[in-house]
Amino acid sequence: MKKLAIGVDIGGINTAFGLVDENGDLYAESVISTKKYPYVDDYPAYVEDLCDSMRALAQSLSFEYELTGIGIGAPNANYHKGTIETPANLWKFKEGDPNPDESRRVFPLADDISKCFGGVKTLITNDANAATIGEMIYGNAKGMRDFIMITLGTGLGSGFVANGEMVYGHDGFAGEFGHVIVERNGRECGCGRRGCLETYVSATGIKRTAFELMAKMNAPSKLRSIAFDDFDASMISAAAEQGDPIALEAFRYTGEMLGRALADVVTVTSPQAIFLFGGLSKAGKLIFEPTQWYMEENMLFVFKNKVKLLPSGIQGKNAAILGASALIWQEAAK
Amino acid sequence: MKKLAIGVDIGGINTAFGLVDENGDLYAESVISTKKYPYVDDYPAYVEDLCDSMRALAQSLSFEYELTGIGIGAPNANYHKGTIETPANLWKFKEGDPNPDESRRVFPLADDISKCFGGVKTLITNDANAATIGEMIYGNAKGMRDFIMITLGTGLGSGFVANGEMVYGHDGFAGEFGHVIVERNGRECGCGRRGCLETYVSATGIKRTAFELMAKMNAPSKLRSIAFDDFDASMISAAAEQGDPIALEAFRYTGEMLGRALADVVTVTSPQAIFLFGGLSKAGKLIFEPTQWYMEENMLFVFKNKVKLLPSGIQGKNAAILGASALIWQEAAK
Repeated sequence: MKKLAIGVDIGGINTAFGLVDENGDLYAESVISTKKYPYVDDYPAYVEDLCDSMRALAQSLSFEYELTGIGIGAPNANYHKGTIETPANLWKFKEGDPNPDESRRVFPLADDISKCFGGVKTLITNDANAATIGEMIYGNAKGMRDFIMITLGTGLGSGFVANGEMVYGHDGFAGEFGHVIVERNGRECGCGRRGCLETYVSATGIKRTAFELMAKMNAPSKLRSIAFDDFDASMISAAAEQGDPIALEAFRYTGEMLGRALADVVTVTSPQAIFLFGGLSKAGKLIFEPTQWYMEENMLFVFKNKVKLLPSGIQGKNAAILGASALIWQEAAK
Repeated sequence: MKKLAIGVDIGGINTAFGLVDENGDLYAESVISTKKYPYVDDYPAYVEDLCDSMRALAQSLSFEYELTGIGIGAPNANYHKGTIETPANLWKFKEGDPNPDESRRVFPLADDISKCFGGVKTLITNDANAATIGEMIYGNAKGMRDFIMITLGTGLGSGFVANGEMVYGHDGFAGEFGHVIVERNGRECGCGRRGCLETYVSATGIKRTAFELMAKMNAPSKLRSIAFDDFDASMISAAAEQGDPIALEAFRYTGEMLGRALADVVTVTSPQAIFLFGGLSKAGKLIFEPTQWYMEENMLFVFKNKVKLLPSGIQGKNAAILGASALIWQEAAK
């Protein structure tokens, strides 16, 4: 009988999910609202809605299959415990909550979802780790035992694979490469510290860079007519493709920051390849060329010209669902 | 029958080796000169000398045992290939060599040693990785699946264990944490770049710091009477224990540089513990206290107060031999 897994991608606005086979073919997909359930007390109703909708999707297929498991990608997910822990944008306290104790915001989602499906194997990890496993199972990292995935979105996520296994670390939160400090006393980060890599290398990071450059440089630029609040990173790509000097310099600088940071982390894990995934990576050579150049320029001699910098093979609108479903196939292959 | 492994520690001056059991008990040890064989062409004679001496040691025991394998710790060792590749201080070209082609300086030592012993399993890795495995098999990391070992000697070596396995990386050279760049345009490093961690955190690093501080500070200090060429790091420990202000500041600064770098790498691998081994680590709280403080001060919130900073459990004169022998027990346990 055909085997399928459900992949679930939990974002702050929507939760998308789909039925996927071992080759990464998607048979059916659906979505519910996450933001309809904003508060701690809404969590049980969210679980019920998600279970009902997943069950409806699972019953919608016209052929028989075996449900091998459910893989979930979510922010602040702890792989070892199956929990989502104190997520910034999910199930928050209402203002004036009499007991805003963060230990109440540890949500045992893997267990709760597994129960709806008669105890089927349910695994959860953060979205970047899910994308990493997706790359390994369906994408360009097939057969690689040591690689790094960098996911460029609003922030910078990452996943590290060593000896063919995902590095979750002791407490299940490994791979926070976006929070390596690359500039002492640098830009303010959402984590409360300063100078984290993601404040430079991400959609918000390159936007901040563009505004810094508008202050620093005198060159004319179309970007100067757009207010900070109306600005998004895709405008920089569009301007760079027309030769805008501020936009081009913004990409060079972003590549420099990423390339330097990659050269450092290569000395630690010695990967075969590094994959760039998501938003900024779609700018192609605008981001790949400076990143590659600065990575090699700063590389320790034993690693020079050995590490490939490649685009992800699972780009596209279903990447997050595929990545989450890959958790199940990866586990089954152990 | 009792099982023993031979552990071999290759340094620039001597090569020490010994017979070790699974508990880390050393039954016999011996040593040959490495520096007697300085040039590329001396390598075969070195191998012969080492094999003869190891065989003599192996035959010296008064009881019967099974030789399970030979583990070697050496600079620039490639675990995957069993080679020592272009080591800085071993088997160099004679001045005026007509063909100083670095590809001639790849030495297949694991195979060569294995042949002397009828094909017994022979594994090689760098000294820091060997110490790491020693910590895991005999030391304070027993039972830990995710930890980091930092070896503080003339330079800074490191070993990373994730999911219970040593991270060798794609090309066998992972774990060069001493060459993460912590200060852009910082101190000149032997690797040809600038600002590497080991130029600040190592015996030579703290010596450089002491000289920088003598220039920067006005405080009186005993260290001011010693010339750079006559100076070694142990003098700083001795002075610090007597309250010397320059020596104390040198330790604080060294701990700051190490603590910051550790906070960064924790975000990537999320270890249960970090072990400090060798030279500088013996300064005890002089180095542990500032390192711990700056590590926590710079830690991403999800990792705060979770990661232990501990002394190695395999310190002492035979640590390198024990570490190398542990390669064999680690492999046997797979």
